Amino acid sequence: MQSVSVVSLQIVVWDKGSFQGRRHEFTAECYNIAALGFNNIGSFRVESGAWVGFEHLGFQGQQFVLERGEYPSWEAWSGSNAYRAERMVSFRPIACANHRDSKMTIYEQENFLGRKGELSDDYPSLPAMGWASNEVGSFRVHSGAWVCSQFPGYRGFQYVMECDCRAGAYKHFREWGSHAQTSQVQSIRRIQQ
Amino acid sequence: MQSVSVVSLQIVVWDKGSFQGRRHEFTAECYNIAALGFNNIGSFRVESGAWVGFEHLGFQGQQFVLERGEYPSWEAWSGSNAYRAERMVSFRPIACANHRDSKMTIYEQENFLGRKGELSDDYPSLPAMGWASNEVGSFRVHSGAWVCSQFPGYRGFQYVMECDCRAGAYKHFREWGSHAQTSQVQSIRRIQQ
Repeated sequence: MQSVSVVSLQIVVWDKGSFQGRRHEFTAECYNIAALGFNNIGSFRVESGAWVGFEHLGFQGQQFVLERGEYPSWEAWSGSNAYRAERMVSFRPIACANHRDSKMTIYEQENFLGRKGELSDDYPSLPAMGWASNEVGSFRVHSGAWVCSQFPGYRGFQYVMECDCRAGAYKHFREWGSHAQTSQVQSIRRIQQ
Repeated sequence: MQSVSVVSLQIVVWDKGSFQGRRHEFTAECYNIAALGFNNIGSFRVESGAWVGFEHLGFQGQQFVLERGEYPSWEAWSGSNAYRAERMVSFRPIACANHRDSKMTIYEQENFLGRKGELSDDYPSLPAMGWASNEVGSFRVHSGAWVCSQFPGYRGFQYVMECDCRAGAYKHFREWGSHAQTSQVQSIRRIQQ
């Protein structure tokens, strides 16, 4: 199958689950869904582009990678976090996502120190790919956008890393907003536009 | 990074979370963890091989793909299902998982009818890859083992499909044990040994 070559941006949001209630279409970022009179986002459909949703207004808190498809309920986009806030109130496009050209270097320690690994594919289990730890200390994104997950198989907290944010340099877990407050990362994949 | 070429099988299981309590090592399938006096599995570490865990004894109920890494709690392996049984009591190796040689054909309708797509890579969003539906009617696995997920980004219920089960032919959602009782599949990836 071929991926779509023209990148447009559209996400359709409802305030209730299962595509019910008030509805709004977006073609750009939403800083705070409350500005439209929505209490929360109950369901949505990503029509085009790749997006990242956030627990709090202003792109703060838990992160949720949103690629094309239908998301009828919280469970559909939340991953499997012990911490179930059940809120997503802001979102923005991931402009630099480029599935065919994504490159990243991972480092054993913070500040780009220690052993390193070069990534250009998807890694559902970093240990199975030869990475000797269940942590990654720092990241340098050379191209594209990536999502790192706490547990194998893309489970647990998600952290989006983009080549055009922070010049692609994520030196410490505080810089990628680790909710677990650790460097635990056991799966990494490219984000699909 | 190179994947490991010698396939061995080992999973270490604890009856409490965070690798606490009673501990047991397995190098083959476990039909029922209760036979060892465990009430449930609280945490585990996959040392080698790819495995699939099940909610019920005898490899029945919800499926959980388990690749190399550490899983300290239910959230680490469950995906993000609305249906939170919080039980995993049997598991078995996925012998035919082969990340480098995995091929599958997906069909729009059951019984291998309608439009089709040939897969040999990972697809976090089938719609973004050009598949025009949020459902897949039937699957034919030619090589390797795959995990299909209900929602984009490998979220929601998981269904394992293997070339050496049912001769790789999954004609209808009943044959892949769909918990959602639908053909909804929005992401598909190869399983990593």
